[in-house]
Amino acid sequence: MKKKIITISREFGSGGRTIGKMVAQRLGFRFFDKDLVREVAAQTGISEEVVEEEGQYVGKKNWLSYLMSFSGGPKVRNGMRVSDFVWVMQSKVIRELAQKEPCVIVGRGSDYVLRDRKDCLRVYIHASLEFREERVVQIYGEREISAEERILDKDRRRKLFYKKYTGRDWGLAGNYHMTLDSGELGLETCAGIIAGLVEEA
Amino acid sequence: MKKKIITISREFGSGGRTIGKMVAQRLGFRFFDKDLVREVAAQTGISEEVVEEEGQYVGKKNWLSYLMSFSGGPKVRNGMRVSDFVWVMQSKVIRELAQKEPCVIVGRGSDYVLRDRKDCLRVYIHASLEFREERVVQIYGEREISAEERILDKDRRRKLFYKKYTGRDWGLAGNYHMTLDSGELGLETCAGIIAGLVEEA
Repeated sequence: MKKKIITISREFGSGGRTIGKMVAQRLGFRFFDKDLVREVAAQTGISEEVVEEEGQYVGKKNWLSYLMSFSGGPKVRNGMRVSDFVWVMQSKVIRELAQKEPCVIVGRGSDYVLRDRKDCLRVYIHASLEFREERVVQIYGEREISAEERILDKDRRRKLFYKKYTGRDWGLAGNYHMTLDSGELGLETCAGIIAGLVEEA
Repeated sequence: MKKKIITISREFGSGGRTIGKMVAQRLGFRFFDKDLVREVAAQTGISEEVVEEEGQYVGKKNWLSYLMSFSGGPKVRNGMRVSDFVWVMQSKVIRELAQKEPCVIVGRGSDYVLRDRKDCLRVYIHASLEFREERVVQIYGEREISAEERILDKDRRRKLFYKKYTGRDWGLAGNYHMTLDSGELGLETCAGIIAGLVEEA
């Protein structure tokens, strides 16, 4: 069946977002990344920053933000913890967007949310730690915390998020139609394979 | 780097072997499946049947063969259990074959054995249980044991084999350069993607 929706799950620093953008451009599909966050924020009245964080990570970035979370901001929405409410509303928005027009959606459990849609191609992008370290420094610059630590922390918290809300293990081949090592194959090649699949079907 | 070796790991019934054969044919590469078993048998003096079984499965097929294994056949070779000896010799043969000429090797932990070769492309093929059930009945016919039971048993014993000899979890995207859902994408398409990657590099 012709694919109209492509979900891109990705390890931090693997270039999955960039690949998704290239695919969307080539196919003329909408690309949802920040726009998805904006839409969830608009529908819930929760700030984009909180949606950005709660919509893909479990666990706090660091102890300071963990302590701050006790002192400020609404802790409960619709009788749910904010993180659970974000998941529910984000899932709803993902389903709505997928219903409207052909698109590429990056992360946020979209592969799971759209698992029953036959016109959805589910892709996972990963790469070696070395490749990702180099890329992270190149794109986000040096920080106080090393690139390796940043990567391992983000991967760990995305994994927890995925397990908590989908019950699945992150990065298992069986959850995707295709997984690609972007470090080994190159970002352009990955985008070419994905777009080619959709065009040829 | 141009890939000269392709390893195909696969779930039982997913068509990984057939895909490997198609890729080899298109690229003009040697295809190693039964030939690998024959070579290991020749180098060890162990029967092809035992190599076939011990070289990719842990655990016995059924209780009858388990009981029989106590009564007949050599239990130890070179101070090792036969299964461990087969792994050592099979790994040696895989490295030798990969050294000789461009080839496609199916299963038997070849992805792990050749993990340090930069010219090796590691692929994993999987598919839904429904797709595999239909294929298994079509190819191997009906048996006393249902297709589902046969599939789950073979998958389980391949998984144990992989864990025992490589220390890795079977089917994790991170272990491969590419994983493909043959049921969703089709065998021809999978073969086309793999061969295309090697040709274009």
